[in-house]
Amino acid sequence: LNEFELIEKYFAPLAGPEGLGLKDDAAHYSPPPGFDLIITKDAMVEGVHFPNGEYGAMIAERLLRVNLSDLAAKGASPRGYLLSIAWPKNLPVKEIEAFARGLKSIQAKFKISLWGGDTVATTGPLVISATLIGVCPENMSCKRFGAKPDDDIWMTGQVGKGFVGLSSLTNSKGPQRPRDYYYRPVPRLELQSVLRGWASAAIDVSDGFVADLNHIAKASHLAMTVEVTDHFWPSEVKADSLSLPETVPSLLTHGDDYEIIFTAHKDHRTLILEAAEKFLFPVSRIGQCHLGKGVTVKYKGEELTFDRTGYSHFNS
Amino acid sequence: LNEFELIEKYFAPLAGPEGLGLKDDAAHYSPPPGFDLIITKDAMVEGVHFPNGEYGAMIAERLLRVNLSDLAAKGASPRGYLLSIAWPKNLPVKEIEAFARGLKSIQAKFKISLWGGDTVATTGPLVISATLIGVCPENMSCKRFGAKPDDDIWMTGQVGKGFVGLSSLTNSKGPQRPRDYYYRPVPRLELQSVLRGWASAAIDVSDGFVADLNHIAKASHLAMTVEVTDHFWPSEVKADSLSLPETVPSLLTHGDDYEIIFTAHKDHRTLILEAAEKFLFPVSRIGQCHLGKGVTVKYKGEELTFDRTGYSHFNS
Repeated sequence: LNEFELIEKYFAPLAGPEGLGLKDDAAHYSPPPGFDLIITKDAMVEGVHFPNGEYGAMIAERLLRVNLSDLAAKGASPRGYLLSIAWPKNLPVKEIEAFARGLKSIQAKFKISLWGGDTVATTGPLVISATLIGVCPENMSCKRFGAKPDDDIWMTGQVGKGFVGLSSLTNSKGPQRPRDYYYRPVPRLELQSVLRGWASAAIDVSDGFVADLNHIAKASHLAMTVEVTDHFWPSEVKADSLSLPETVPSLLTHGDDYEIIFTAHKDHRTLILEAAEKFLFPVSRIGQCHLGKGVTVKYKGEELTFDRTGYSHFNS
Repeated sequence: LNEFELIEKYFAPLAGPEGLGLKDDAAHYSPPPGFDLIITKDAMVEGVHFPNGEYGAMIAERLLRVNLSDLAAKGASPRGYLLSIAWPKNLPVKEIEAFARGLKSIQAKFKISLWGGDTVATTGPLVISATLIGVCPENMSCKRFGAKPDDDIWMTGQVGKGFVGLSSLTNSKGPQRPRDYYYRPVPRLELQSVLRGWASAAIDVSDGFVADLNHIAKASHLAMTVEVTDHFWPSEVKADSLSLPETVPSLLTHGDDYEIIFTAHKDHRTLILEAAEKFLFPVSRIGQCHLGKGVTVKYKGEELTFDRTGYSHFNS
């Protein structure tokens, strides 16, 4: 199959009307009046963001889910995406077919479609990048800045799913759920009304719980104090492993959790809890914003310190 | 420098207001009412789309110029872009700095800004991809489909600049102009009013002159006949090389010319020539659309046949 046949067979069937059947130079989209566009782009590299030799549906799912999480954190409704894929030369066509199948299942689940992109060959590892496009009513999206002193800090779900998920990959006979933490993170799109209505700032936990708190604190020019308890961890974290000195820091800094941290005025507490009941998302109030700088994390009454606050791709 | 410092130092200064200082999860853009969004995404791989070991400003220029050409072909005004870069590990920081300098010069020249993206590390060759976003008044953009039987076929500039450009790279002491064909193709944004007003279909010549004619013919469900003359070639093509059997086919199929082929009703001939004078672009009427299928290319009275109509990344 040449490049055109590949696109025709596996990717054109995924195209929405904006993508013109992937038969044009560019996508055409008429945004609804009164909406802002929210656009995010994330890349993944084989051997860095997923294991070497992994090419199939799971990788496609992970790429789109991670990008959808960025849109979810801003309060946006996803609409479509463009995709670039640099395939390793001589990759069997069945891997490409499986990748397309992964895209298709995400499209159906999250009601998005393929608008365009590019497929090329590389002598190196697989490199994929997706640009996700969503919409949000004018001026209702959340940013990292915007948190105010005395705002509450909230968090959905658990901390450390990314770490638990990655650790589980070494045991291919293990249970599916921690593997899903890694390959199938769930973008918290059900948080939309809370983020649009009551949140002052928000971020998804990708770099690491502590790093992402820091991102909000820095962007909003304030300090944050959170209190961490053993209720925070996914159920896969065994009680006895928590006594090891590296466990809690790893859970708090590994990242790839794809939960959402957001801040909101105290007055909104009841509304947020009611929304959580209505839209069925787990949410906890974990701390407070205040004047100052930096993030303080307390665990069992003591302040934790960290060698690293999250993941970084370069250290030179 | 770690990932965050790298972004802060070299890329954040390139961000437009839509990019929120590259300090957020997503870009925010409020499109002007009454405009469509035109979005394109192209990737490039070291050793495939540009020579091995080339990392600097020229690569950044080429990436953006090629994507801008896609927007130009649709009649769109470019606004901003998102960028993914997978850097080879241990790439010297000065190469990254030069890359950012290339972005900056294109931003100034074409009045676009950086809205977001991602930088990651790879064990393989450099892989870069850009998503360009432009706007066009509602329903005025050009597609590949839309050409009608009896429409004229027009072309800007010359055919074969991509081929001449690539050939020139082997001679580093040669003149600059053919090297610019390769590294600094000029997106034909000055064609905007013609494409919005009078063109029935358009495409930029990236896959190859013949392949791109075929794209329009196929999408528009008609046949095209063009007459090629020796006035088509860039001045670097020597007269004696034209007698070699491979020269003309190479010029017509290599691609990477980034000129624009468009179709328009006969009634618009004078308007198009007047626009060419006003906006200073070279344009030639090269053929005719008609009922049927396929593309016929005549040269010196004879019909040419081609082994390949353009470039494809896969052949397996």
